[in-house]
Amino acid sequence: MKTHFDCITCMLNGLISLFKQGLIEEKYQETVIKEVLAYYANIDFSQSPLLTNRNLHRVIRKIANNPDPYKKLKDNMNKEAVKYCEKYKDIVLKSDNPLDKALRIAVAGNVIDFGPGHSIEIEKNIEKLLNEDFVIDDSQELFNDLKKVKNILYLGDNTGEIVFDKLFLEVIGRNDITFVVRNSPILNDATMEDVKFFGIDKLVNVMTNGDDAPGTLLEFTSPEFKEIFDKADLIISKGQGNFEGLSEIKNKNIYFLLMIKCHIIANSVGLKNGDYIVKSALKNKDFAIK
Amino acid sequence: MKTHFDCITCMLNGLISLFKQGLIEEKYQETVIKEVLAYYANIDFSQSPLLTNRNLHRVIRKIANNPDPYKKLKDNMNKEAVKYCEKYKDIVLKSDNPLDKALRIAVAGNVIDFGPGHSIEIEKNIEKLLNEDFVIDDSQELFNDLKKVKNILYLGDNTGEIVFDKLFLEVIGRNDITFVVRNSPILNDATMEDVKFFGIDKLVNVMTNGDDAPGTLLEFTSPEFKEIFDKADLIISKGQGNFEGLSEIKNKNIYFLLMIKCHIIANSVGLKNGDYIVKSALKNKDFAIK
Repeated sequence: MKTHFDCITCMLNGLISLFKQGLIEEKYQETVIKEVLAYYANIDFSQSPLLTNRNLHRVIRKIANNPDPYKKLKDNMNKEAVKYCEKYKDIVLKSDNPLDKALRIAVAGNVIDFGPGHSIEIEKNIEKLLNEDFVIDDSQELFNDLKKVKNILYLGDNTGEIVFDKLFLEVIGRNDITFVVRNSPILNDATMEDVKFFGIDKLVNVMTNGDDAPGTLLEFTSPEFKEIFDKADLIISKGQGNFEGLSEIKNKNIYFLLMIKCHIIANSVGLKNGDYIVKSALKNKDFAIK
Repeated sequence: MKTHFDCITCMLNGLISLFKQGLIEEKYQETVIKEVLAYYANIDFSQSPLLTNRNLHRVIRKIANNPDPYKKLKDNMNKEAVKYCEKYKDIVLKSDNPLDKALRIAVAGNVIDFGPGHSIEIEKNIEKLLNEDFVIDDSQELFNDLKKVKNILYLGDNTGEIVFDKLFLEVIGRNDITFVVRNSPILNDATMEDVKFFGIDKLVNVMTNGDDAPGTLLEFTSPEFKEIFDKADLIISKGQGNFEGLSEIKNKNIYFLLMIKCHIIANSVGLKNGDYIVKSALKNKDFAIK
């Protein structure tokens, strides 16, 4: 996926929202935004917005003298998500099809993104997905694969959301899966700190991908990650960032589990913002972000 | 008024909208947006957004090799506005209080801004203002002044909109008023070409302010305009751009007639987007954009 002009205003709005929430000190704001504008004035638009965003946030964190501007928001998300997970865990375990229910809750959890006040959204989305169809639903293929394949990689996405991934992992019931997060803070993406907060490291193998893009850009990931990625028989990829980075790979058994949140991506794959999908990369290989 | 961070994304969204409508050739788009970003990376944020916008659009027009990107939209607006004016002229002339009705229609006309497809908006807004109160209403003071003062300046705003100003001028019934527009194309603001299209030059005195900011920045206007401005006993200022430039002037008999269209201005003066006002600058002098 290339960087579109709309990606610039999207990113700037995100940055200005950080300013308004006081998450970047006022004394740094003008310098930060000017550096960001100067960066965009010189970018190669054929680059992925994941890369642009990664580089930009490196600039922001450095100039704002703040290694993790989203820390407070992320901590709030984690605490909120735990609350909801307790409630839905009970529903999953008592249901006729815990695997299906846990998958639905994990995908619904992808609604968690930026900013506080999402509690009603989380509940609303989970309730919706517990009762409605996914817009694309390859979940049966995923469930079949989960029973028969060996090397499973699970690419996490956002803080908070990963507690629902944990619930799904618990129901899958295998401890030989590898759960992956970003190497260091970027936006509200989950890192190893969040993995440990939820104790996912006690359930399955955990690792970082060695990079701080808000998605998976294979060429920048660590050799250790690349090796495990190459060997994987099944990859569960959560969220739009991972989908952006991997959507053009045609020969890996990847399942993309996400909510569509960007109109450019939505248009590109013929979906709408807010659509939830469970999509096998091997089925309909033309389904990729242009 | 200083340039806010939100002004950047507002302006960029406007530019991207021009791209999407094909009003700037695709081959120039990347260079244009990069120049605009580079410009913003170096601005003085204490400057008025009117000035920032003026300079930016000079850059855009030059790089896009297009002296008037909004030409097509403006021509459409003019044609549409004529249609509606015919209808409302009849209502005004048959009413018990033509001056009040014509003022209401002139202020409602300020809804005309950017892009096509505004016809329903225009009708809806005129109907609304014919029957509802202004949020701030100093129109009685304006009507009193119109009867007794000598030198009247009328600062126009947008293409299309000025046909409703013409109707108001017809009802005022004085040919010694001076109607003013921008000196050359900027956004969808009216210029002398539009004044002539509607024949306003046959009704009253007309002139440009000598500048191409999308509002009135006195320090950049021509000596001829400044002289007439200084002498004016009454100034009717249409639209947000003129209000932005003149709102801090405390000792001129200015009446601001406009629809509030920007949340920063709305917050600054304690109003809401979409509010219509007829505001005397001499009454409550603290009413100025900070």
